Amino acid sequence: MSHESVTHAFYSDNTASVAPELLAAIAAVNTGPQPSYGDDPWTLKLDTAFSRFFARPVRAFVVTTGTAANALSLATLAPPYGNVFAHAGAHVVEDECGAVEFYSGGARLTLVSGDHGRIDPGALEQALAAHPATVHTVQPAALTLTQATELGTSYRPEAIATLSAVAHRHGLRVHMDGARLANAIDFLDCAPADVTWRAGVDVLSFGATKNGALAAEAVVFFDPQLVRDFELRRKRAGHLLSKSRYAAAQLLTYVESGLWRTNAARANRLAQQIAGAAGSRLSHPVEANELFLELGAAGKQALRAQGFGFYDWGPAAGPEARFVVSWDQTQQSVEALCAALRALRSA
Amino acid sequence: MSHESVTHAFYSDNTASVAPELLAAIAAVNTGPQPSYGDDPWTLKLDTAFSRFFARPVRAFVVTTGTAANALSLATLAPPYGNVFAHAGAHVVEDECGAVEFYSGGARLTLVSGDHGRIDPGALEQALAAHPATVHTVQPAALTLTQATELGTSYRPEAIATLSAVAHRHGLRVHMDGARLANAIDFLDCAPADVTWRAGVDVLSFGATKNGALAAEAVVFFDPQLVRDFELRRKRAGHLLSKSRYAAAQLLTYVESGLWRTNAARANRLAQQIAGAAGSRLSHPVEANELFLELGAAGKQALRAQGFGFYDWGPAAGPEARFVVSWDQTQQSVEALCAALRALRSA
Amino acid sequence: MSHESVTHAFYSDNTASVAPELLAAIAAVNTGPQPSYGDDPWTLKLDTAFSRFFARPVRAFVVTTGTAANALSLATLAPPYGNVFAHAGAHVVEDECGAVEFYSGGARLTLVSGDHGRIDPGALEQALAAHPATVHTVQPAALTLTQATELGTSYRPEAIATLSAVAHRHGLRVHMDGARLANAIDFLDCAPADVTWRAGVDVLSFGATKNGALAAEAVVFFDPQLVRDFELRRKRAGHLLSKSRYAAAQLLTYVESGLWRTNAARANRLAQQIAGAAGSRLSHPVEANELFLELGAAGKQALRAQGFGFYDWGPAAGPEARFVVSWDQTQQSVEALCAALRALRSA
Amino acid sequence: MSHESVTHAFYSDNTASVAPELLAAIAAVNTGPQPSYGDDPWTLKLDTAFSRFFARPVRAFVVTTGTAANALSLATLAPPYGNVFAHAGAHVVEDECGAVEFYSGGARLTLVSGDHGRIDPGALEQALAAHPATVHTVQPAALTLTQATELGTSYRPEAIATLSAVAHRHGLRVHMDGARLANAIDFLDCAPADVTWRAGVDVLSFGATKNGALAAEAVVFFDPQLVRDFELRRKRAGHLLSKSRYAAAQLLTYVESGLWRTNAARANRLAQQIAGAAGSRLSHPVEANELFLELGAAGKQALRAQGFGFYDWGPAAGPEARFVVSWDQTQQSVEALCAALRALRSA
Repeated sequence: MSHESVTHAFYSDNTASVAPELLAAIAAVNTGPQPSYGDDPWTLKLDTAFSRFFARPVRAFVVTTGTAANALSLATLAPPYGNVFAHAGAHVVEDECGAVEFYSGGARLTLVSGDHGRIDPGALEQALAAHPATVHTVQPAALTLTQATELGTSYRPEAIATLSAVAHRHGLRVHMDGARLANAIDFLDCAPADVTWRAGVDVLSFGATKNGALAAEAVVFFDPQLVRDFELRRKRAGHLLSKSRYAAAQLLTYVESGLWRTNAARANRLAQQIAGAAGSRLSHPVEANELFLELGAAGKQALRAQGFGFYDWGPAAGPEARFVVSWDQTQQSVEALCAALRALRSA
Repeated sequence: MSHESVTHAFYSDNTASVAPELLAAIAAVNTGPQPSYGDDPWTLKLDTAFSRFFARPVRAFVVTTGTAANALSLATLAPPYGNVFAHAGAHVVEDECGAVEFYSGGARLTLVSGDHGRIDPGALEQALAAHPATVHTVQPAALTLTQATELGTSYRPEAIATLSAVAHRHGLRVHMDGARLANAIDFLDCAPADVTWRAGVDVLSFGATKNGALAAEAVVFFDPQLVRDFELRRKRAGHLLSKSRYAAAQLLTYVESGLWRTNAARANRLAQQIAGAAGSRLSHPVEANELFLELGAAGKQALRAQGFGFYDWGPAAGPEARFVVSWDQTQQSVEALCAALRALRSA
Repeated sequence: MSHESVTHAFYSDNTASVAPELLAAIAAVNTGPQPSYGDDPWTLKLDTAFSRFFARPVRAFVVTTGTAANALSLATLAPPYGNVFAHAGAHVVEDECGAVEFYSGGARLTLVSGDHGRIDPGALEQALAAHPATVHTVQPAALTLTQATELGTSYRPEAIATLSAVAHRHGLRVHMDGARLANAIDFLDCAPADVTWRAGVDVLSFGATKNGALAAEAVVFFDPQLVRDFELRRKRAGHLLSKSRYAAAQLLTYVESGLWRTNAARANRLAQQIAGAAGSRLSHPVEANELFLELGAAGKQALRAQGFGFYDWGPAAGPEARFVVSWDQTQQSVEALCAALRALRSA
Repeated sequence: MSHESVTHAFYSDNTASVAPELLAAIAAVNTGPQPSYGDDPWTLKLDTAFSRFFARPVRAFVVTTGTAANALSLATLAPPYGNVFAHAGAHVVEDECGAVEFYSGGARLTLVSGDHGRIDPGALEQALAAHPATVHTVQPAALTLTQATELGTSYRPEAIATLSAVAHRHGLRVHMDGARLANAIDFLDCAPADVTWRAGVDVLSFGATKNGALAAEAVVFFDPQLVRDFELRRKRAGHLLSKSRYAAAQLLTYVESGLWRTNAARANRLAQQIAGAAGSRLSHPVEANELFLELGAAGKQALRAQGFGFYDWGPAAGPEARFVVSWDQTQQSVEALCAALRALRSA
């Protein structure tokens, strides 16, 4: 990706800057020596803060990347001979270089389909039926859901509950990849609990980095029994930070100040604005901060010529493009994109 | 570790704060969207900056912890059936919860002895002779050295060269755990090259976190052939940062501004000051920023009663204690410790 | 599986007995002490015997199971972050409890479709296009083909060559699961070389157990460079036999005496006899020793009531059944089955 | 090892032939089709036979090698971040190419010392004290004992009970590598239970191959809870035999007919005969079927010149040699060795 000639970058919320509130939180804890490896006062407050956030007792742990959060979570749920059911387009499948396989000691990802990035309950039932547990097969162990999905849609609480019920009935634990959880909660306008533990989620990768943090994610356990195994795996993977306070301080500010919602709401709102301009070019409902547009080769070229930066979705020669609205997206970029999309439509 | 009643903390340089220069470097790159996953301008400059630092072409990569740096480096050098020779007290042996074993897919650490934390060349020769490569045995693959060592000593360039020569003669690659490399270089007053590639080191874990950075370490390859394998392993381990710029900016400032030396020199100088006060209680030469003192149970208790915080070295009931001087140690704490140690001597 | 009331077992060639010629070969080498771990005269002859069999220099190694042969072979070809392309119904996918993932340290199996158990070259091209090698993805590493396939069909030499060419063009190595290779070669009436190295196969799991041996399989390397890695992985997996001579003697007899062909030809011939009786109920061409029949629930029940033993193919309630003809299948069982199938047709 | 000019081989009991009773057992079950993968009548009888052998309910499983038995057993006991305490000279340490590390996903072997191949309880206590369980360290998980040891000695039941008690007190499970268990039991003249579960052993690698079997070992669980995990790991490792009956039949005959004792007793008796001739040259008590002799370079050369085959113990240039007496050792070889040793003494 060359950003050189790009005026309006919609590549990914991974390219966003760090929210000033979180930089300030980092600076605020830079106060001389503090206990290391999570024994500092801020890391020690995470359980309380996240328990309040989720309206029930939870255990929350710092990691620096979403890949680490996902792989560590799933390694805690799946034995080496485990079978983890995931949407075919999930980040753990497509974008983590086999992290789940690495962390679990060789568990398998079995792909499940579903429209608009959401696992279809019928398809999950079929996949489970097609993968019975005999001594010759990998053993059904976990279901992982992504919220918001990789296609910018969000699961309704009932949809998650339905999938979790299927999973639990078959003895699977449920993991949620919440790299964009804030965007989903804002879109759904529900409580954090509604799309997580109340809907059957056992372990959550709680994302903050895409939404303004500096390499700070949390793994949240709704079942405390899994915690010790997780802690040892995290250490062993080099993901226990000696200077944990700087990530913890960000997470505290993020969940306690409402920044998670403010930033997500802004990105979502701008995404809706673009969706309005995109009209029938939308491939999927816009239920978070991502848009997938059928622009055609000419449309993509036209937008790039005007300084818009975005990724092809699918083959470079294909018609589809992905636009991600970051928490720090400028209003000006959004308006320019809206105008350009409207111009494309009338062309 | 409770720091509550501690006025003067000498627990670890891991408890230190972040250097203001590095917080400033983070803030300076917080300028809107930037390419992610290391394609930003600062990460792209790391090779050049570290090549200048080491006075030869190198490849340098960001990771967030020393454990990740060590385990990823060694996984690149050792096959799953590899044998990695390490000092019995090395961090990879004692303090990383089996990270090397995890990352390598089950390689073994074979322990080698040596006084004052330094591997003895004769002991290395013996260990190699005792571990021949047959189809029934793990295969000699790598030697890992720690600079400065876990006992606060530093290898002279010639000592590293001798050990590397033994290793290379037996077909092993050489890794250096440089979590406190800056302190060693300052103590030795040599060039960075002298204790690394010129002395035979193939891959280096270059520490910055203990010396003032916020979760920023580098892995430096003097042999570019190993790089692709490393990059995939790093991604797969969740150690490729999406917002790489913030760690990269720190590392650039750290090596280019001379901060690495300034901070290390200060800690070293204060350590020498304490060493002078400790006198014959020193268990090992002070050649970096750590001190190991034979205080006895009464001595330890006396110091703790005066508000000094430090770890027992060995059993809690034993006589020995470790003091680590951080880059941000206050002069006041050091003087208080010197006074207390002198008082102990005259007691 | 209860075999109690079964008169005519067609469950699997895994249920077959050991060929008397191979029991005799075992007895013949039971002559006092012999060097262990493969240094015995019989194991040492394997390279020569298999080189003659394949009409070119090869290296051949003993293992006891097909799962070990497959997983060890593929671990030699694929790094932990490797991507191995396999037919969706392959034994490595469905029946080995994640052995490839275990042995490789977490490589992934990417499923490719194709009629009648054979990978379709177009589907392989598409799968490769859909899985490019970036730092975020598992890296294309190997293609594995099964000969004869899990659906009782055989790849023609040209079909293998086409697939191998696709694989090699993309930098993949080619593995063949030859658990029923003898049956395929007999059906195709070609030379062993034609469906292996001449068609681009790099490493072969050479089956003998299903065709009459007592836990004796070979891994055959057409590329000697991979051998050392294999040998260490085999040892480390507990698959290097101390009393290697007993497996080696079987393999020597098997390939040198022509028993491989005699046994396979008999099973194939009987399978064709049954195919003739099955007529339009066949789901797939019969090109080895397996038959897949659309019997319907009633048909399956009728045959079982008459004492035929076989597995459901797909759900127990579904219409399809698998019949495998073993090398030691009695003529009487085959004739009984033919009669029963003809009766079903006329019913 | 070249056996060419060797008349009297004392290399290893791994070089021994298969007992005729066990070849007969193989032939006796070669009776047409039988259920595969352990559902045959003989494999199904193993639990009963071994429960009788050990005088309590146990679960017993077939594997083909001692390395597989050990590594699978320990992988069942130790998590990937586990610490397994073993004698520094144990087979799992020295001769299995890192199998424990591989099977467990990277557990560590921590070496414990003790005279004559036996772990010293005090040394075990010290090792446990030196390896506390914090989040930074591998977690104490298992103790593995070898019976008879690698130096030809046997633990008394009380010694095993003492070590097991230490282990259990620290939360470790106890594994026994019983590759030569029959020789130890015969020497001690105790019940099989006395040196296993009654003395605190949780899982046992039960060897038969060295004592006359054709690649047949058992893993015996005294704790049934570990069984399912074991079965899946075994399958995944390619150690579940399709034609399990041939190994099972051997094991049944071996334990039920008393062959285990007959063969071991013969080897032990011959070893004692040699011990008598060796006199003061013995480095260790002879408590099974192995002898370690201080012969000196000249002595070793003299014996080899007379056609005796044996391994150096330690460096080739060193003074020590190992002699192993196999179940099928000829009386003539033993008498020749005794004579030669007596001649050395008087020389």
